[in-house]
Amino acid sequence: MNAHAPIVILGATGAVGREVLHILAHRGVPASRIRALASERSVGTSITYAHDSVVVREVAPREFEGASLAIFAGSADLSRRWAPIALEQGVTVIDNSSAFRLDHSVPLVVPEINPEVLDSATVNPRGSARLIANPNCSTILLLVALGPLRRAFGIRRIDVATYQAVSGAGLEAIDELHTQARASLVGAGASSSPRVFKEPCAFNVFSHDSAINIDDGTNGEERKIIDESRKIWQDPSLRITPTCVRVPVVRAHTMAVTVELSRPTHEADLRAALADAPGVTLVDDRTNNAFPTPLKASGQDKVLVGRIRPDPCDKPDSQGRHSRFCLLLSGDQLRKGAATNAVQIADLVGAI
Amino acid sequence: MNAHAPIVILGATGAVGREVLHILAHRGVPASRIRALASERSVGTSITYAHDSVVVREVAPREFEGASLAIFAGSADLSRRWAPIALEQGVTVIDNSSAFRLDHSVPLVVPEINPEVLDSATVNPRGSARLIANPNCSTILLLVALGPLRRAFGIRRIDVATYQAVSGAGLEAIDELHTQARASLVGAGASSSPRVFKEPCAFNVFSHDSAINIDDGTNGEERKIIDESRKIWQDPSLRITPTCVRVPVVRAHTMAVTVELSRPTHEADLRAALADAPGVTLVDDRTNNAFPTPLKASGQDKVLVGRIRPDPCDKPDSQGRHSRFCLLLSGDQLRKGAATNAVQIADLVGAI
Repeated sequence: MNAHAPIVILGATGAVGREVLHILAHRGVPASRIRALASERSVGTSITYAHDSVVVREVAPREFEGASLAIFAGSADLSRRWAPIALEQGVTVIDNSSAFRLDHSVPLVVPEINPEVLDSATVNPRGSARLIANPNCSTILLLVALGPLRRAFGIRRIDVATYQAVSGAGLEAIDELHTQARASLVGAGASSSPRVFKEPCAFNVFSHDSAINIDDGTNGEERKIIDESRKIWQDPSLRITPTCVRVPVVRAHTMAVTVELSRPTHEADLRAALADAPGVTLVDDRTNNAFPTPLKASGQDKVLVGRIRPDPCDKPDSQGRHSRFCLLLSGDQLRKGAATNAVQIADLVGAI
Repeated sequence: MNAHAPIVILGATGAVGREVLHILAHRGVPASRIRALASERSVGTSITYAHDSVVVREVAPREFEGASLAIFAGSADLSRRWAPIALEQGVTVIDNSSAFRLDHSVPLVVPEINPEVLDSATVNPRGSARLIANPNCSTILLLVALGPLRRAFGIRRIDVATYQAVSGAGLEAIDELHTQARASLVGAGASSSPRVFKEPCAFNVFSHDSAINIDDGTNGEERKIIDESRKIWQDPSLRITPTCVRVPVVRAHTMAVTVELSRPTHEADLRAALADAPGVTLVDDRTNNAFPTPLKASGQDKVLVGRIRPDPCDKPDSQGRHSRFCLLLSGDQLRKGAATNAVQIADLVGAI
């Protein structure tokens, strides 16, 4: 680590890039250390950074010179192109795209779940630089909540239905939601045609916009949750059944989860395992019907977990323990689901 | 049946009552046959009915005189008070409230699923009048979609997460959604405090607003789905695990469903069973990522079903058949989930 070395943010003008800058500014990294890079379209743009600002520059090999860290928050194509160049120059890359997540030589890390894989991670032969992948936002949020249960009780099966915010599709998607909502409120709903999404997103709900595998019917987001969870938990036969759906929410994803445990337990013990878990905040007030919501989770680094209850159709064993439990979680997919997780990884490898 | 006898709509000014009137007008029932009743607050209000209008009157015993049918679309308390009075006068009551749904002597009917229970239904000793209960909206939509699968393959277990429109909580909830959305769009989100719901509903998602059972953690909506499905399918040990959630949608509920069959089948056979099913329209276009949405379902009497796929973690048997399948459904909870179902029942018993 070099506490004065530049930090490169590639894709600095996107939803995740801006969040990374926000977090770095908040923890006092001076603007002079920030190299905000983006594609040609945004070059020259000025971005507020703490009480200062940074000017967006075009990606070029020289921009990685002398840097200690590069956080990639752009497309998978951009990552595939620039990661080798950054690594070559001894820069540790934390990549938020899907480009390298399933690469066997690249660690895929949720710091609360599998920090140990960083110890054995491949080190670039030229120096200490590493390529580390940040998982998909839904995968991160889900595993932060279920990791403690897996450690304490084992997991046999997971069913999860998502309620995903539009900002997972970028800043343009937030504009689209607001524009459509305005049009709909003045009775001109049909006149604003979808651009980011194929379906209208205001006052609507639709199956996730990632591409569908024609053969098996899963969409890209569901496939990521399955494959990445299996890699992170090192369990290639993990049974996890996701249905991914977009909802008209600006930020923070919500998930309805049913989990079948390997070892039955009492509700109180399950709740205790979650209460003590890193990265989790319990929001579970039956009396006031107050549970996790995306508005409560927005801007937070913790995953909110609540509505913890035994599956109402699960018969308890002779000691009153259950094998199946339901819960609801909400987490900010731009923070813990992306930017916060990347910065946590950077801290773990001492790259900030 | 008397084709000229009055038809009473109790709760005519509510979201479901208005939909019942809309359906009756559409099928040509003249305004002169309609007796629109409501609580004191709405008495004297004029409601558009086809090219005519009907004036809302206060509920009173005389309003049931000579009627062939009363559709109750008010509160459970209102139903408990007025159903005996209507029956006493020989009027068949179709009750949309939860008041009598679990009463052993009252048939609970989804015409596509269990019309046969009407044949053996208790008949009022004074005449041919009957009390028939309309199930909860979510129960109706779910069973219309899963009934064909249960008949063809048997069902072992159902997991369902709902995406429920605010209008299930009445017309005031639609106002609240629109008011909050407007406030949020001009940056005054915090200034519009929730009234119908405890949580903000615009650009948010929250656990269903029905009361939570403090002991087991289920909410009222989930309990209705469990208990009513068991009664309709006459299977008291049916395993069905619902999580009910509200989304910022005006009308039509959506559900993400995973179903475990008793007899494994090929995806094509499962799809064929749904394609032929009464009350179901397939919307299942993987190439164009076009599946059921609440906007597509709004105003429709059919339940839209799509995203039919084997659970990606389910291993097929030696003949390539699967036991677990996922699907997405959307249905208009004010139409098929309430008003349409009630009118279908009225047709079955010849009461219109």
